[in-house]
Amino acid sequence: MVKESRVDVLIIGAGPSGLMCANALAGAGVDFRIIDNRPVGVAAGQADGIQPRTIEVLQSYGLAEPLLKEGAQMHLCAFYNPGPNGGIERTGRAPDVTAPTARFPFKITISQASIEAVFLESLKSQGISVDRPIVPSSLEISQDPEELLDPSSYPAKVVLDHIGPSDSTPEQEIVHAKFVLGADGAHSWVRKTLGFTMDGEQTDYIWGVIDFIPDTNFPDIRNRSAIHSSNGSCMIIPREGDKVRFYLQMLDKDVMDPETGRIDKQKVTAENLINTARKTFYPYIINEPKKVDWCSIYIIGQRVASKFSKHERVFIAGDACHTHSPKAGQGMNASMNDTHNLAWKLAQVLRGRADISLLKTYELERQKYAQDLINFDREFSTLFSGKPRTSENEDGVSHEEFLRAFQASGGFSSGIGVHYMPSAIVETIHQGCAPNLIIGQRMLPQMFVRAADARPVEIQDMLPADTRFKLLFFVGLLTSEQLTRVRGLAEELQLPTSFLQKYDYQAQGKAQSMFDIISIAAGHKDDVNFLDLPPTFRTHWSQVLIDDTDVTGRLGGGAYPRFGIDEKEITLVVVRPDGYVGMVAPSTALESVDKYFGSFLIGKTLNPEA
Amino acid sequence: MVKESRVDVLIIGAGPSGLMCANALAGAGVDFRIIDNRPVGVAAGQADGIQPRTIEVLQSYGLAEPLLKEGAQMHLCAFYNPGPNGGIERTGRAPDVTAPTARFPFKITISQASIEAVFLESLKSQGISVDRPIVPSSLEISQDPEELLDPSSYPAKVVLDHIGPSDSTPEQEIVHAKFVLGADGAHSWVRKTLGFTMDGEQTDYIWGVIDFIPDTNFPDIRNRSAIHSSNGSCMIIPREGDKVRFYLQMLDKDVMDPETGRIDKQKVTAENLINTARKTFYPYIINEPKKVDWCSIYIIGQRVASKFSKHERVFIAGDACHTHSPKAGQGMNASMNDTHNLAWKLAQVLRGRADISLLKTYELERQKYAQDLINFDREFSTLFSGKPRTSENEDGVSHEEFLRAFQASGGFSSGIGVHYMPSAIVETIHQGCAPNLIIGQRMLPQMFVRAADARPVEIQDMLPADTRFKLLFFVGLLTSEQLTRVRGLAEELQLPTSFLQKYDYQAQGKAQSMFDIISIAAGHKDDVNFLDLPPTFRTHWSQVLIDDTDVTGRLGGGAYPRFGIDEKEITLVVVRPDGYVGMVAPSTALESVDKYFGSFLIGKTLNPEA
Repeated sequence: MVKESRVDVLIIGAGPSGLMCANALAGAGVDFRIIDNRPVGVAAGQADGIQPRTIEVLQSYGLAEPLLKEGAQMHLCAFYNPGPNGGIERTGRAPDVTAPTARFPFKITISQASIEAVFLESLKSQGISVDRPIVPSSLEISQDPEELLDPSSYPAKVVLDHIGPSDSTPEQEIVHAKFVLGADGAHSWVRKTLGFTMDGEQTDYIWGVIDFIPDTNFPDIRNRSAIHSSNGSCMIIPREGDKVRFYLQMLDKDVMDPETGRIDKQKVTAENLINTARKTFYPYIINEPKKVDWCSIYIIGQRVASKFSKHERVFIAGDACHTHSPKAGQGMNASMNDTHNLAWKLAQVLRGRADISLLKTYELERQKYAQDLINFDREFSTLFSGKPRTSENEDGVSHEEFLRAFQASGGFSSGIGVHYMPSAIVETIHQGCAPNLIIGQRMLPQMFVRAADARPVEIQDMLPADTRFKLLFFVGLLTSEQLTRVRGLAEELQLPTSFLQKYDYQAQGKAQSMFDIISIAAGHKDDVNFLDLPPTFRTHWSQVLIDDTDVTGRLGGGAYPRFGIDEKEITLVVVRPDGYVGMVAPSTALESVDKYFGSFLIGKTLNPEA
Repeated sequence: MVKESRVDVLIIGAGPSGLMCANALAGAGVDFRIIDNRPVGVAAGQADGIQPRTIEVLQSYGLAEPLLKEGAQMHLCAFYNPGPNGGIERTGRAPDVTAPTARFPFKITISQASIEAVFLESLKSQGISVDRPIVPSSLEISQDPEELLDPSSYPAKVVLDHIGPSDSTPEQEIVHAKFVLGADGAHSWVRKTLGFTMDGEQTDYIWGVIDFIPDTNFPDIRNRSAIHSSNGSCMIIPREGDKVRFYLQMLDKDVMDPETGRIDKQKVTAENLINTARKTFYPYIINEPKKVDWCSIYIIGQRVASKFSKHERVFIAGDACHTHSPKAGQGMNASMNDTHNLAWKLAQVLRGRADISLLKTYELERQKYAQDLINFDREFSTLFSGKPRTSENEDGVSHEEFLRAFQASGGFSSGIGVHYMPSAIVETIHQGCAPNLIIGQRMLPQMFVRAADARPVEIQDMLPADTRFKLLFFVGLLTSEQLTRVRGLAEELQLPTSFLQKYDYQAQGKAQSMFDIISIAAGHKDDVNFLDLPPTFRTHWSQVLIDDTDVTGRLGGGAYPRFGIDEKEITLVVVRPDGYVGMVAPSTALESVDKYFGSFLIGKTLNPEA
C-alpha cells in the first residue's frame, strides 16, 4: 500500500521562495508541507543580496533583525574606469541606493544559507521543518471545472519519492493537495511538468564569481564597486564579516573549451578567477588569498516563464519563473517577493474569506514584474559588460552614461518602485485624495507619534504581513466639527451593510480577522486626546497616531502634506496584507470601498461557517 | 567536615545591582559566585523605571534590546492641577526627559522581574545561575595589611547557610573570597555586619503604590502624569502592555493605626488605594479593576550609607547604600550603575593589570552620586507631596514651580548628567582640547559613518562595556601635512615607553586586551581613504570613522564642532570601560597620557605573568 495524505498547500522547493511562502502560511495558520530534493540546504555561494524593499518585507514578518545585524550593508557604490596610466582609477562614489523613500537606504549582503536559516529558525519555533530529501515524480491536476473552482477540493495529486540511504528504493507517497507551489529553481520540475516554456534569450557574456577574504590595497573593498577596466569589468560586493564577492567578466579563451564551444569546467578555478581579478584591478594589488569560500561561473540568460499558474491550483515562483544575471542582486529578492505576493491570497481563499479568482492576481502582478526585471537586467548587463570608453574606444560606455543608468534604475532595482497595475485588488479611482500615496505601490514608510503615549512609530511596523487589510483612517484635524463627521463615519461603518461588518468575521485570534483599523490625526501631541475618537477608530489605545514630531523634534511630522492628504477631510487608505496600497477613498465614497472589497471577498452571510 | 571553597568574587544578593555585577564579571571572564536568600526572584511589583542613561549602559552590555521591545516608553509627562470646578485639569504636557544629549529620549518601564530576567538569561547563556536560597551567617576580613593589598589573596571568609526543605538543618559552607559584594538590599546584612550606618532622615509622607490595568476616561493614562489635586498627589507610570502604576499620596487616617502610630497593614488594601485614586482623579473616573497585580505602601526616607567599602575588599551596592522614594524612578538605576562602575575595576585588579588602589574610586564616585541622589529626591518629593497652589492655598506649589524643578533636574534624574570628580581615573588637565566632551561625564552619543563602507554607526555602540579603555583618536582632516603628523604619532605610540605598549598585554581574546583604538577623521565620505592611515590607527577596517553624514544626509556629521575639537589637530579622547570620559589630550601631550594610565595600571614588565 502506498501511503496517501492530504494537505492544503504543498510547497516543492525550500529555497528563499519556498521558505518565504512556508513562513507566511505558517504565520497565517494554513495547513501546508514543504519538501526539498536536497538532503541539506545550501552551504556556500548562491545569491547574497537583499534589496531595500525586501528588507521592508522581511521586517513585516519580524525577520529583518538578524539580517540587519549579521549582514554587511552597502551604502555607497564606487565607480572605477580606465585611468591615464593604463590602470583603473576612481571616477566617483555615489549612494548605492537611489530610491529616496527607502526605509532602509542600503542593501544587505549575506550568504543565502544565512537567509534560509532565518526562515528555518522561524519555522522551527512554530514546530515546522522541511521534509527532505524528497523528489516529486508525478503531478496530475483534475480537469473537472467544478472541482477546480471549489477551494475545499483537492484537485492536485502529486507522487513523492522519499529518498533513503543510497541504493535503497525510495518510498512512495501520494499527496492530494488543494494547492501546489513549485519553488523548485531554475530547472523547475514543476514548470516542466506543467509544460510552461521559458521565453527569452541567452547572451554571450561569461562571468565568474568568487567569495573570499581579500588582502588588497584597493580602497573601496568594503563598498560596492563597479569597475570598468580595459581588461574586463568587475563588480565588488562586500559581504558579512570580512568576506567579499567578486563578479568578474571572463574572456572566452580563459574558460571555454575551443573544441566544444562550451565552458570547460577544468578551467574554472579560483586561481584562474583571482588572476582575472588582478588584471582588472591593476594598479591595485590582490595578495594570494588564504582560502576561497566558493567560486562558480555563468553565462547570462534573461528568461521569463510563459505562465505562472495552472488553473490557479498549481503555481510556480522564484527562479522557476525568471532567470537573469546575478550581478544586480535581484534574483533572491524577486523570488521571495513572488511568494510574499501569493501567500496571503492563498490563506484568504483557503479560509473561505476570498473568492478563488483572487489568485489570478498572482500571475497578473508577478509576471509583469518579472518581465520588467529581465528587461532591466538585459540593459544593465549590457552596459556593464560593454567596453569602457577610453581614448582608443570612443564608442565605449562612459562613466556618466553608466552612472545615469545606475541611478535611473534605482527605484526598480531597490524594489521600492514595484508598481502593481489596476486589478480586483488595485483600485485607483480615488487616487486624487492622496495623490502621493501611489495606489499599487507599497505604503510609504513614515514616522508618526502615538497619540496616547507620544511614542514614535514607523507606520510600516504597524502593517505586519498577517493577512489582514489595514484600514488607515486619516481623520484630519480634530476640530469639534471634524469630530462630528468622524462620529458619523463611525456610525456608517457600524451598519450591517458596511464592508467593515460584512467581511470582518467574528473570529478568535487577531490573525483571523480581516481588518485592522489605524487612525491618524493631524495636530499636535500636546493637544490631541485619543479618547475623543469614537471606539470604532480606537480599537486599542495604541492604534491612534498623530502626524507630529516626537519629543526631540527629529522624528515624524509632515505626513499629510507629504501624502497629499487634506487635513480637513477624512481619507481612508487601504493597505493590502502584503503592504501595497490597494485603494484610497474619501469618507464620502464608502460605497466604492464596499465595492472594492466585494469584488474579491466573501461576505459572512454567504459563508457562515468560515 | 564543613565544605570550604574559594572564589574571586562572592556576590551576595541577586537583585538588579548584584545581577548587573554578575553579568559584567561573567563577560570579563572573572571567577565569581552569586547567591541570594530568596528561593526565587521577585514576581511582581518593586522597581520598574529604567532611565535614559541606564538604557545606554544596558546597551553597552548588549542587553537593552528586549527591554526596548517589551517595556512601555514614557516620552511625555502630563501635569494636572486643581481646576476651577473642584476637580483636576491638565495644565500642560512636556517631554518627560529633559536631557538634550540622551541617546534614548524616554524612560522604559517594565517589571523588575523582566529586568532581572534579561540578566538571568544572559548569565544562563554563559552557563551561570544564581545559587539560592543561601543565607550568609558570618563575614570576617583579614586584618593583615599585606594580605589586604595583595589582589591574589583571599582575605574575606564568609559562612553560608544553604537552605534546604523546611525543618531541615541548613548545610554550611565556608567561602574564602578575594572580594565580596553586598548587593543585599535596603536591609543589607553585609552593611550591618560591616557596621556601616545609614545617614539621613525619615519624612512624614506616606505613599501607596498599585499596579493594575485601569479602565478610565483619563486622557493621559499612557503618559507619565503628575497630578496635584486638592485631595492629594498622584504619579501615573504607564507600564508594559496595558498595565499602569499609580503612586498615591495617602492620608494618615487612611492607613495609620491611631493607637500604635504605625502603618496598619490591614488598611493597605487595593480597594483603599483605588478609592484614594478616585478622589485624586475627580472628575475623571476609574472603573472597578478586574484584577490588581500588586500593591504596597511606604514612608519616604532618604539615607546614604556612611561607607561603601571595607578595605576595598568588601563592597556594598544598590539599596544597601542608598534608600529614597521610588517615585522619581531612580532606585534600580542607581543600583545597576553602582556595580557597572565597580565591575570593570574588579576585573582589571583581579587580572593583575590595575593597582588595587583603583578600587578606591568606587566609593569616591558612587557615594558622591548617592548623596546627590538623596538631595534630589528630598527636594522633588517635598515639592510633589506638597499641597498644590489654589486660591485657598496661595502658598502651595504652583505648576510653574513644579515644572521648573522637574526640568531643571532632568539632567540628573535621567542619569545623563552624572559627573565623576577628578581622581586617578578622571584627569581634566587637557579639557580645553575637547571643551564640550566633559571629562568625568559619559561619552556623548554621536553618529559617524564608517570610512570603509559608509555605514552609519553610533559611537556608543563602539564602546561596549568589555573592560577595555577606548582610545578615540580624532585624527582631523587628512591633508598630506596632517597625515605626516599622524604617521609620526603612530611611530611614537609604537615606542616601548608608550602607554600603548606598556599596558597592552599580549593576550588571547579581545576582552583581555587593555585598549581599543578607534580613529575618527574629519572630511567627506566620498574622499576619505581609510587605507591612508597607518596600521596603528586602523586595527580593522571597521575601526575608522568619518565625521560626516550618511548617504541620506539625515544621520551623523558635525561632531568636531559639537565636541569643540580642532580639525587641524590630533586629539585623543580616552573613554573608560564604563563609558565615561577619563581624559582628553592633544597628541603633543602623550606624556600626560602615559602618566594617567601609569597612575592606576601595572606595566607588563612589572607583572610578566598577567
